[in-house]
Amino acid sequence: MSAGLLGRPLPPGSTIGILGGGQLGRMLALAAARLGLKCHIYAPEADSCAFQVSAAHTVASYQDEQALRRFAGLVDVVTYEFENVPAETAKVLEQICPLAPGSKALATAQDRIAEKQFVASLGIAVAPFEAVESVLSLRDAIRTIGAPAILKTRRFGYDGKGQVRLTGQESPEVAWADIGKAPAVLEGMVSFECEVSVIAARSWSGEMAFYDVPVNVHEAGILRTSTVPSGLAAAREAEAREIARAIVEALGYVGVIGIEMFATAERLVVNEMAPRVHNSGHWTMDACAVSQFEQHIRAIAGWPLGDAGRHSDVVMHNLLGHEVDGWQELAARPGTALHLYGKGEARRGRKMGHLNALRPRQG
Amino acid sequence: MSAGLLGRPLPPGSTIGILGGGQLGRMLALAAARLGLKCHIYAPEADSCAFQVSAAHTVASYQDEQALRRFAGLVDVVTYEFENVPAETAKVLEQICPLAPGSKALATAQDRIAEKQFVASLGIAVAPFEAVESVLSLRDAIRTIGAPAILKTRRFGYDGKGQVRLTGQESPEVAWADIGKAPAVLEGMVSFECEVSVIAARSWSGEMAFYDVPVNVHEAGILRTSTVPSGLAAAREAEAREIARAIVEALGYVGVIGIEMFATAERLVVNEMAPRVHNSGHWTMDACAVSQFEQHIRAIAGWPLGDAGRHSDVVMHNLLGHEVDGWQELAARPGTALHLYGKGEARRGRKMGHLNALRPRQG
Repeated sequence: MSAGLLGRPLPPGSTIGILGGGQLGRMLALAAARLGLKCHIYAPEADSCAFQVSAAHTVASYQDEQALRRFAGLVDVVTYEFENVPAETAKVLEQICPLAPGSKALATAQDRIAEKQFVASLGIAVAPFEAVESVLSLRDAIRTIGAPAILKTRRFGYDGKGQVRLTGQESPEVAWADIGKAPAVLEGMVSFECEVSVIAARSWSGEMAFYDVPVNVHEAGILRTSTVPSGLAAAREAEAREIARAIVEALGYVGVIGIEMFATAERLVVNEMAPRVHNSGHWTMDACAVSQFEQHIRAIAGWPLGDAGRHSDVVMHNLLGHEVDGWQELAARPGTALHLYGKGEARRGRKMGHLNALRPRQG
Repeated sequence: MSAGLLGRPLPPGSTIGILGGGQLGRMLALAAARLGLKCHIYAPEADSCAFQVSAAHTVASYQDEQALRRFAGLVDVVTYEFENVPAETAKVLEQICPLAPGSKALATAQDRIAEKQFVASLGIAVAPFEAVESVLSLRDAIRTIGAPAILKTRRFGYDGKGQVRLTGQESPEVAWADIGKAPAVLEGMVSFECEVSVIAARSWSGEMAFYDVPVNVHEAGILRTSTVPSGLAAAREAEAREIARAIVEALGYVGVIGIEMFATAERLVVNEMAPRVHNSGHWTMDACAVSQFEQHIRAIAGWPLGDAGRHSDVVMHNLLGHEVDGWQELAARPGTALHLYGKGEARRGRKMGHLNALRPRQG
């Protein structure tokens, strides 16, 4: 087995460095612990919920070169829980320590236009899009794309933030102001039957693993549920996996990736990709022997990938904001695994936990 | 719902105190984290593997009253991962903070004679036994019990330690020296068809949950495998659960308990009980929505008990000593979840991890 930049698989007792201390970092750390690996979390927020379950942590900004160098010297591989890691941060770390997924994946996924161009260059369908740099170019873009359409910042968007829907009635000036006059992309709306995602993993040696495809329901840009099996035809699901395979191979990707797609009557259209574990893969924690979190750790640590097979049917429900206050009732539901993230304030729309409701496998 | 001494269920963000920093403490901490609860581990060994996954830890002896009081003041409930918590330690903690399971369970389970007398007093079968205080009383006991028999220290035995098998040919002097001339019990050997165990949970309000009964195989006093379903007749399994119910109710028990039993042709004979999560329940981590570890945390924290139902058939294999060196091959097995405990030296017989091999549920 090739372990790429690692040189060799990291033995139990090694330390995984994780940039970002939110729920994804926390669940990665919990998964690493199952394998006897330690985690060191690096995050700017002193109350990061991932610190609660990790052997070590550093509180520092992503621009603090000295802290980054110290961190990279203490860990055996670095990964991240969010795609907005600054390119400079990645560069500093990569000089000292293997980084996975690598900087090509990061650069591609953190810029919506680079991402769409990259995906399209592989012959994979994406929504029609136009770059927007000013009110003037927004006007042009609306003319080209038509309405309805969706204006998104090129960078730093997540959970529906940095997005505004255009019906065609709005003034371009207002829309441009709404997204903060930041470099943006106007995307044509895709009329889809359902939204699905592929959660895939690739190792340093090119070994790949795919989970079953969930069907996802969003509300106000935030994922509400992921359901497996998806109801997608088997050939469609195979096509989704082949799209993911082409993307990760072209990126030389190492780790777990989440790729969101629209399923239209005719085809699959890639919506966006996240170079990390993905909310629509949280169901794997309770419906598979090896979760997406453990799979990511295995991939970046040079371990053999785990069996991505599913033993149960499952619906994952996100708990947003004050929905988490119902924890006592939620904890009592039969056949259900409850996950809470150890976060403080239950702000509106904040991801506080999730539920995996299991059923015996039918599909 | 009554939460007993707690007053109320502990909300997410509360802190569970755990005495003992080994693999059971570690897996309890990982389970607590799923529920958004923090852990504070108290252990004398500075390299305790549970520290790696916990929000806080204290390194101090179980006799250090000052450290115990400080610890008890920082947590919302105290539990333990081993039954040999000194009675004095429990007493100090209980004055400050709820302790679960309580001191009655602890006192009963840490003295083999008290335990057998207690179980027998409920009308439940135990192996024939005689207290041994000296070579003289050992001679008497051998005469009463006959051979083969097994001499065990009254206290501090685990994984076959503090035990010696007597065929009837040994000199009582040598056997007495072999177990360190400590207060002991001579037990008659039970001719059994198989060894099983009940993993049960009871909450502060008296709610109970039972996992399916595993059949267990030991070698040299150490558990090697637990298999579910056990092959035991349904009526037998129900009888095993009723025995467990009688024991936990008589103890006013709160938490998860493991009760080992011999299944003979005619009946079930209680071998021993552990007032804690139990090695023969490790399969629940991957074959149930709610593991024994999470169940214990739920019980002591005043939460509703979780669904103890099983979605898969499973064989749990312990990884002892250098067996863990095969981690790369073990990690690649299909349908298998690997758990490593983050321990340093792989000493002979030391529990380094376990495997749960899953199969679609048949039984």
